[in-house]
Amino acid sequence: MAESVFLAELSWPQFKSKVAQNVPIFLPLGATEQHGPHMALNVDVVLPTAVCERVARNVGGLVAPTIPYGYKSQPRSGGGEAFPGTTSLDASTFSLVVRDIIRSLGNDGIRRLVVLNGHFENTWPGVEGVDLGIRELRRDGVSDMQVMRLEYWDFVQRSTLDRLFPEGFPGTELEHASLLETSLMLVLRPDLVDMKQIPNDGPAKFPTYDRYPVPEGFVPASGVLARAERASAEKGEWLMRDHVELITNAVRAEFGL
Amino acid sequence: MAESVFLAELSWPQFKSKVAQNVPIFLPLGATEQHGPHMALNVDVVLPTAVCERVARNVGGLVAPTIPYGYKSQPRSGGGEAFPGTTSLDASTFSLVVRDIIRSLGNDGIRRLVVLNGHFENTWPGVEGVDLGIRELRRDGVSDMQVMRLEYWDFVQRSTLDRLFPEGFPGTELEHASLLETSLMLVLRPDLVDMKQIPNDGPAKFPTYDRYPVPEGFVPASGVLARAERASAEKGEWLMRDHVELITNAVRAEFGL
Amino acid sequence: MAESVFLAELSWPQFKSKVAQNVPIFLPLGATEQHGPHMALNVDVVLPTAVCERVARNVGGLVAPTIPYGYKSQPRSGGGEAFPGTTSLDASTFSLVVRDIIRSLGNDGIRRLVVLNGHFENTWPGVEGVDLGIRELRRDGVSDMQVMRLEYWDFVQRSTLDRLFPEGFPGTELEHASLLETSLMLVLRPDLVDMKQIPNDGPAKFPTYDRYPVPEGFVPASGVLARAERASAEKGEWLMRDHVELITNAVRAEFGL
Amino acid sequence: MAESVFLAELSWPQFKSKVAQNVPIFLPLGATEQHGPHMALNVDVVLPTAVCERVARNVGGLVAPTIPYGYKSQPRSGGGEAFPGTTSLDASTFSLVVRDIIRSLGNDGIRRLVVLNGHFENTWPGVEGVDLGIRELRRDGVSDMQVMRLEYWDFVQRSTLDRLFPEGFPGTELEHASLLETSLMLVLRPDLVDMKQIPNDGPAKFPTYDRYPVPEGFVPASGVLARAERASAEKGEWLMRDHVELITNAVRAEFGL
Amino acid sequence: MAESVFLAELSWPQFKSKVAQNVPIFLPLGATEQHGPHMALNVDVVLPTAVCERVARNVGGLVAPTIPYGYKSQPRSGGGEAFPGTTSLDASTFSLVVRDIIRSLGNDGIRRLVVLNGHFENTWPGVEGVDLGIRELRRDGVSDMQVMRLEYWDFVQRSTLDRLFPEGFPGTELEHASLLETSLMLVLRPDLVDMKQIPNDGPAKFPTYDRYPVPEGFVPASGVLARAERASAEKGEWLMRDHVELITNAVRAEFGL
Amino acid sequence: MAESVFLAELSWPQFKSKVAQNVPIFLPLGATEQHGPHMALNVDVVLPTAVCERVARNVGGLVAPTIPYGYKSQPRSGGGEAFPGTTSLDASTFSLVVRDIIRSLGNDGIRRLVVLNGHFENTWPGVEGVDLGIRELRRDGVSDMQVMRLEYWDFVQRSTLDRLFPEGFPGTELEHASLLETSLMLVLRPDLVDMKQIPNDGPAKFPTYDRYPVPEGFVPASGVLARAERASAEKGEWLMRDHVELITNAVRAEFGL
Repeated sequence: MAESVFLAELSWPQFKSKVAQNVPIFLPLGATEQHGPHMALNVDVVLPTAVCERVARNVGGLVAPTIPYGYKSQPRSGGGEAFPGTTSLDASTFSLVVRDIIRSLGNDGIRRLVVLNGHFENTWPGVEGVDLGIRELRRDGVSDMQVMRLEYWDFVQRSTLDRLFPEGFPGTELEHASLLETSLMLVLRPDLVDMKQIPNDGPAKFPTYDRYPVPEGFVPASGVLARAERASAEKGEWLMRDHVELITNAVRAEFGL
Repeated sequence: MAESVFLAELSWPQFKSKVAQNVPIFLPLGATEQHGPHMALNVDVVLPTAVCERVARNVGGLVAPTIPYGYKSQPRSGGGEAFPGTTSLDASTFSLVVRDIIRSLGNDGIRRLVVLNGHFENTWPGVEGVDLGIRELRRDGVSDMQVMRLEYWDFVQRSTLDRLFPEGFPGTELEHASLLETSLMLVLRPDLVDMKQIPNDGPAKFPTYDRYPVPEGFVPASGVLARAERASAEKGEWLMRDHVELITNAVRAEFGL
Repeated sequence: MAESVFLAELSWPQFKSKVAQNVPIFLPLGATEQHGPHMALNVDVVLPTAVCERVARNVGGLVAPTIPYGYKSQPRSGGGEAFPGTTSLDASTFSLVVRDIIRSLGNDGIRRLVVLNGHFENTWPGVEGVDLGIRELRRDGVSDMQVMRLEYWDFVQRSTLDRLFPEGFPGTELEHASLLETSLMLVLRPDLVDMKQIPNDGPAKFPTYDRYPVPEGFVPASGVLARAERASAEKGEWLMRDHVELITNAVRAEFGL
Repeated sequence: MAESVFLAELSWPQFKSKVAQNVPIFLPLGATEQHGPHMALNVDVVLPTAVCERVARNVGGLVAPTIPYGYKSQPRSGGGEAFPGTTSLDASTFSLVVRDIIRSLGNDGIRRLVVLNGHFENTWPGVEGVDLGIRELRRDGVSDMQVMRLEYWDFVQRSTLDRLFPEGFPGTELEHASLLETSLMLVLRPDLVDMKQIPNDGPAKFPTYDRYPVPEGFVPASGVLARAERASAEKGEWLMRDHVELITNAVRAEFGL
Repeated sequence: MAESVFLAELSWPQFKSKVAQNVPIFLPLGATEQHGPHMALNVDVVLPTAVCERVARNVGGLVAPTIPYGYKSQPRSGGGEAFPGTTSLDASTFSLVVRDIIRSLGNDGIRRLVVLNGHFENTWPGVEGVDLGIRELRRDGVSDMQVMRLEYWDFVQRSTLDRLFPEGFPGTELEHASLLETSLMLVLRPDLVDMKQIPNDGPAKFPTYDRYPVPEGFVPASGVLARAERASAEKGEWLMRDHVELITNAVRAEFGL
Repeated sequence: MAESVFLAELSWPQFKSKVAQNVPIFLPLGATEQHGPHMALNVDVVLPTAVCERVARNVGGLVAPTIPYGYKSQPRSGGGEAFPGTTSLDASTFSLVVRDIIRSLGNDGIRRLVVLNGHFENTWPGVEGVDLGIRELRRDGVSDMQVMRLEYWDFVQRSTLDRLFPEGFPGTELEHASLLETSLMLVLRPDLVDMKQIPNDGPAKFPTYDRYPVPEGFVPASGVLARAERASAEKGEWLMRDHVELITNAVRAEFGL
């Protein structure tokens, strides 16, 4: 059985020897969420998993199974729950999943953990899950667990954004199913992108508030919040390089690797 | 973007058109759990996902993302939580995950669901999750959701078991990481099986009770509860054929497909 | 005030002196569930309480009050919740009850506990309750609680089953309200058995899956899953003897009594 | 199988016919709690069960199984959790038990329910449990459930209290394990009372506040909060008569029986 | 920035220096609840906050922000949830709020806490919240938190009650929105009292049980349970003096201040 | 009793007549959190309450009591929980509070609600609370509740930000206890600002990830994340004018007022 960067592809004795080496574990937080008519529902699984895989290889770590169901999509950042196929968890459910995994890993001896989020709405329930997991571990007598928690898209150079958005970056939230994610998918899973289906009903013009129930026309009918038509694999490579390099650097710095 | 049997590989409009056709959704319940020194930790993800995939193809259904973290492993059926790499959820967490997914699918219009379990200990928290999901849907006004819930290993012909265990079948629980699962993995992911690592410290001799804390030597040191050395891809094919065929028949009969 | 084997019939100073002697406590997990037209709804309270009582006498232990409401009845093992009179708890409620009782007993100084289950569906929520109780106690500084957890019906000799089922034992699940339970009730509470009401619509022919909603005719109309007509007090005595003797032996062995 | 006033002693068809007659169900809320050195831990189970039994006979109702574990004992009303043998549930656990039972009974068709409390501290978690149960039933489409909720000790005539306490009634809370409960136990289970063990360290002199942690000497060492030495079976008969008669009248009036 | 008796009006370094002095913190438990047509909905916020403020000044303590939403109003003590404006929390929500605040204060170094309740129905969920908070702190390694928990209205001299109710005190529960609360509001917020609106449909004649659903006419239409017309600021001063003096004395005695 | 814009200062009949007019209710979400050495802990209560008050006056609405305890402060946006005086709730507790208030208001007949957040970290648990509240109301038969949910600081004109930050706006998160909040407090509660205490250890230089446990020096020692020294009441007036005007416009537009 070959070595693998994926925790779940190791036997338990292989995993045990990794624990003994105090390798960092990467936990990708994903989602099953609409990403426009031109991409599959698994974008938020594919991207953070791929980033984790590459960073883990760089630092000798392991990637735990990606949580494939995320916190509920919101209209202003993901289109909202009304899109068919978006399949989501309540906030407390999601936080408990993260809590339990951290407790379980901590009780196995893991002491370095990177929680890498790939779905905007997971951010805060993820924060809570990490806090609850660490709290439980501390009560179980484990007080030296080290955790980094991050959104992969925050690791990009200013110069890259400038190259990607010569007219100015519209902001992370609006980028749902748009240029960034589409470019990355063209690198990672081009079979799950259909450039011909890219809509042109965006960018969304959201007010600075949420509205319940979601009014007609609040979200672009396509679910794409900004514009995706200039996406390309080349741009995806620029992004991927930044994400992997900058996160690798951060992990090395924090964990002294 | 090609058609896919995996829900998460569809775009939302593709998924929407599947919902309109009332196709059945298959939800595999997995786990990240030790499966002996000769197999990877993802056996309980690989097997139910593969069964779902094949049955879904047969009946025109879709496979939802496999839940990759299961309910806590128990010493008498999976070796227990003390094995490194076994990474698990509390029962209520697991049930809430199942509940939320069912509610989310039901609110999307799904009316035929097959919850297919691949990890023994998921059985009961899975039952509860289904019950809670249906209860919530009913309160949301969805009263016609149809669910089948099953363990894939229960779908095997007597004659196949007789061929596999000429000296008598030791029972499902003890089969953890043993002949059945190993044979199936040899079919599906031979790269994740190392026959040379198969231990011979089993079969486990469990008393008819649980013991907390787990005493020394209660579980075979290898985590393999019965014997695996006679596993083969051929036997895995026999099993896979039974699982797929019998579950396909059952789904067709129940849902009138 | 006489000595009693029932914890609740002691005064607190009497109980305190028992704690000082480190006696084992037996906690019966019961249910209020249909058991056919020929038996009362309390079968799953009467049987585990009686087994506990006898074993506790043998080993100098005490029987805590039986939890009289169990986890939800399932069609394939208890007929299901649709039968009038079946009155049940959600899984998390049941687990929390078990958790709280264990925490409360542990904080009183109890260190030997036998959780004895008398209702099939309680098995897994009971497992979870024990795990949660021990976890809480550990966080409260009690790390030496010893627990056994068992289903009483697993303590029977092969030879007894052979005598009872000369044509082969149909398995525990199907035995709901059938020969075993009826025979035991004829020993313990014959006033709650009416042999003339024994139905003959069984045995149930269940598929190897659950179905929601439960289809018409899925469960025998009587709620009796196998056959009960050959039940007798004599057979009940055989069973009772086995249960008490084998559990007594196990408790003595585990707790060094 | 004879008729019984205890729900759990009926078969399901017998229960079903009772439901068809719309009989009231009585649910006693008990506890396992210290009641001084002269009484057993089950006082709060014995008393409400007995009251329910008698009232149910009067009105043709049924008594559901008594919940034997109550909400945590408080120093000023029950001595507190530090007394050995007091075995209790968290408030939310207790409320969920009540909720689930009410939901289960309501879904069986029960429309008249009397929740009769026998343990002071159960009052408020019981109130919450009833509210949650009714809320869930309403969401399940059952909106005509009628519930009475009461503490049995509130049903006593002024003249009876005057006869019992010629020097003035000290109030319900302080009466824990004292004259009232002891007298009632002398009627119902004299074998569980030992008048020679009645302490004389009371009555408790509590401040008008709770104190955490409970200071030394806050609670009388015996756990008896007032005085019990004048208890007698005769006085117990006076009380029992009042409780049963007044509650019977109230139930008849409310339910039009 | 001036010193303030209100915790929330301090900067964090000011608060820190108070923690170093081990000052007691007062946590008022309030509610938003109908108090008749003659008083505002915030009576149960105004009164406990004012009592805390005065006592805190006496003992050098600080008043934490009042919890402004309380446990659900009950018909027999507050008129019930059906009155418009009564805005309440479930019991478990309320208990969790109290738990979290106590945990947070304890982790900041606070060791003396007075939980002062101003809404009858908060009593028991407040008790539970305190218990849960202390339990969590203990598990976080804080075992020396000292808590007093009280209802302010219990701190009144017999002679004051006699002056106020020459014909006899009807009891705390019935006093909802009546003479006591109205008199206190005339001292503290006379602008929120309109004596001309005092109704005369009381006092309520409640049975000794709760009834669900609440029958027509069960509660006086005004929401005033006893009589308020004799309220006066002078009487309010008598009460306030007692509350503040007696609670001050108790806090000093318990905390050795 | 005068009219008031504060819900809690109305009597229930006054509130009832407001409900009949379908006025919007404003629910401010606050916190008790460190805001540097120069401001009080109640900044996140004062600011959203004041904005709500002014907007409510503009549109004829009412302000519900501000929730004074918020979700846990995070190092990168509020300094984190380690600062003394920051007193916070778990995410699920906070969400349940919001849920219960919405359910309670909805059951009172409220159909227009503005949830106005004043504490960055409340954003997501607030989103979840709104979703849960609406879900419960729908299950209670209330399907026409209209909710707006917003952070007040998002309602500011570009030109105002340009005037305030001639060198560029550092972003909302870093603005904790800095120029914006300090200026607003100088308008609303200058007594709770001490300009002499404004620190100069900022602005914070955060990495793009969270770190557990929080490393030494991660957060500026003062708790002020950016710079506050240029704050002034005049600037506060600019901001307040924008917040009130823009939110008023939005509320009018959405609710047709």
